[in-house]
Amino acid sequence: MAMKRISYKNIASPKGFKATGIHCGLKHKKKDLGLLVSEVPASVAGVFTTNAIIAAPLLITKDVVYQTGKMQAIIVNAGNANACTGKQGMADAYTMQKLTADKLGIDRNLVGVASTGVIGEHMKMDPVTEGIKQLDPVDELEGAMSFSQAIMTTDTVTKNTSYQTIIDGKEVIIAGTAKGSGMIEPNMATMLGFITTDANIESKYLQKALKSITDITFNAITVDGDTSTNDMVVVMANGMAENNTLTPDHPDWENFVQTLHVVSQELAKMIAKDGEGATKLIEVEVKGAITDAEARKIAKTVVGSPLVKTAVFGNDANWGRIIAAVGYSGATLDPNAITIHIGTTKVVENGEPVAFSEEDLIVYLKQPEVKIYVDIHQGDGLGTAWGCDLTYDYVQINATYRS
Amino acid sequence: MAMKRISYKNIASPKGFKATGIHCGLKHKKKDLGLLVSEVPASVAGVFTTNAIIAAPLLITKDVVYQTGKMQAIIVNAGNANACTGKQGMADAYTMQKLTADKLGIDRNLVGVASTGVIGEHMKMDPVTEGIKQLDPVDELEGAMSFSQAIMTTDTVTKNTSYQTIIDGKEVIIAGTAKGSGMIEPNMATMLGFITTDANIESKYLQKALKSITDITFNAITVDGDTSTNDMVVVMANGMAENNTLTPDHPDWENFVQTLHVVSQELAKMIAKDGEGATKLIEVEVKGAITDAEARKIAKTVVGSPLVKTAVFGNDANWGRIIAAVGYSGATLDPNAITIHIGTTKVVENGEPVAFSEEDLIVYLKQPEVKIYVDIHQGDGLGTAWGCDLTYDYVQINATYRS
Repeated sequence: MAMKRISYKNIASPKGFKATGIHCGLKHKKKDLGLLVSEVPASVAGVFTTNAIIAAPLLITKDVVYQTGKMQAIIVNAGNANACTGKQGMADAYTMQKLTADKLGIDRNLVGVASTGVIGEHMKMDPVTEGIKQLDPVDELEGAMSFSQAIMTTDTVTKNTSYQTIIDGKEVIIAGTAKGSGMIEPNMATMLGFITTDANIESKYLQKALKSITDITFNAITVDGDTSTNDMVVVMANGMAENNTLTPDHPDWENFVQTLHVVSQELAKMIAKDGEGATKLIEVEVKGAITDAEARKIAKTVVGSPLVKTAVFGNDANWGRIIAAVGYSGATLDPNAITIHIGTTKVVENGEPVAFSEEDLIVYLKQPEVKIYVDIHQGDGLGTAWGCDLTYDYVQINATYRS
Repeated sequence: MAMKRISYKNIASPKGFKATGIHCGLKHKKKDLGLLVSEVPASVAGVFTTNAIIAAPLLITKDVVYQTGKMQAIIVNAGNANACTGKQGMADAYTMQKLTADKLGIDRNLVGVASTGVIGEHMKMDPVTEGIKQLDPVDELEGAMSFSQAIMTTDTVTKNTSYQTIIDGKEVIIAGTAKGSGMIEPNMATMLGFITTDANIESKYLQKALKSITDITFNAITVDGDTSTNDMVVVMANGMAENNTLTPDHPDWENFVQTLHVVSQELAKMIAKDGEGATKLIEVEVKGAITDAEARKIAKTVVGSPLVKTAVFGNDANWGRIIAAVGYSGATLDPNAITIHIGTTKVVENGEPVAFSEEDLIVYLKQPEVKIYVDIHQGDGLGTAWGCDLTYDYVQINATYRS
């Protein structure tokens, strides 16, 4: 049974999930506090920032994922990252966990916490405390949308996707929401991703599934070592679809992983496309590297090059910047065996320029999604990365972020 | 004897050096062809791009440095990088070498070639051929200035410095010129540097001296692996000051190396300050790392962060972005042992925010040179890196470079 996208479903659609989001007062007017909750404790998996400086809420959520091994709810705020806030920051994050647990009448060790926003300012706990009391999660689209809005910072659109598949004859939904945005590559953006599913699966296998797809989805936009203090993606699987427990030996294992992959990839692409100030999604697909990892490294280097990003913004078929980025990616390559296409137009073959119509390429580059294909002819390694163009608006947004 | 800066001296000032630059027709109107020449074959040292894709002229100059071991002249053009131009590109670079050698009546193996400009277009050899015939190098300021102008691409100012010192009682001059600019970090800029001196030193020791300072000068703005296809720095030492040959055992060895260091560092800082669209030089000084290399890595990561760069442009004391960059630098650190100053204002201590006057810092951030000090309290490692702010003009310049 193939998966299918169900556009009207959302993170509150898998059986037993509810969500909500409100304005509590960390931002001026917009929603800034969200809650995602499952009727029963859910299996949980998570991937977290590799930044050496880790925000307080992540330390708590990591404990839930790795120590408790189950999660039933996660409380999320935007407007303050609660990072570099010392002991007070830890205390505040624990307070958020405790208040949420008390409100829901569940064990605090089942409650995750996530934050995004300015680094180094202590949380205003009065509005958060009042806000948590007011949260009223529902299993409807409205609840999911308000949650998606409450996790936004400089995001311009909410990011949601959902797929349905059949496992053991049972309908299973995997849905996700995420926030970006920042300059995705090569710098840190706080990326938060929340994926819900009613599939029945143990935490250890859910973690295995998430790990297997992270490098080719979320990490293909946010590079290891270029992460923020607050990045996290968590998946909650509450088992209420009542399929037989998924393990790698289950006949539908691959189906489940593929569906999770597609949900993750769509969220990742939405984050890249909504990079700060971005007007275009850039996709770089590399083949012919000696390994998949090297192919991804090249793809990420090209999509992260400020000179490539500004050229795409300027509708400039400046492939010299593309090949230069391939060259400094550090991957094993032969300069005379590189082929580059921009869209369907070949611009480089055997490392040398090919005649092409600049006019036609300008028309292509004006599209909202620009694809760059690089073949380095060294092996079978494949990799894709996503990013966005670098624009005046990026500078404007980030030169005045706190003002 | 201490070195001293002599502002009116230049690359044509060391005994026996001449220079010139003219417009030959690779650019619309500006100078685009330069020649630097020594009366006698000079000892030579060079550092070259680590990009896997290396422009044709660099292959030739590398041969001169590593095979011939002496250089008497170098021909440089701007407007075309002669990179990714295949066999024709190599033939064109050899032609430039040969024409220059013939004009000067010297062996072609004593002539280096350097190019900067657009990648992937074949050289227009007619104007270059005609231009080489017209070159008339002189040992005056005018010759040095016209050479400096002829190597510029998007540079807004020429970059020159010169120091004088005494070795064995002889006056020795070390002078240099360079071009940037691009976004220095984290991306490739074509950086060309030409340093002349009348010191007497063998090529192998000149190379040793250059290598010893490259990481803390030119590589502190252009990171390994983030280099262009055309980067190079060459030093020519023609011995006409008639000091006893410099070796590491010579009593003035350190004096010579320090003078070369200062010349290189000044050129590097000038390149960083004139980064495309830049309004400010940013200097990041890191101490307390476990090694100097780790300190430099942190410094380069901070100064290369687009979010730090835009914050500095916006006069925003957003130290959260600084500490986040420290965190993702990959260096060994303790999040709770980080101190950060912006100028003389402490903004972070023990990883936590310190109260400070935003108003005072805004005044500081509006200065043309902004210094950021990071102490991670892990060891004795020191390192400094230089960069520039990220501005609307950077986007404008690079979105329309070829238009």
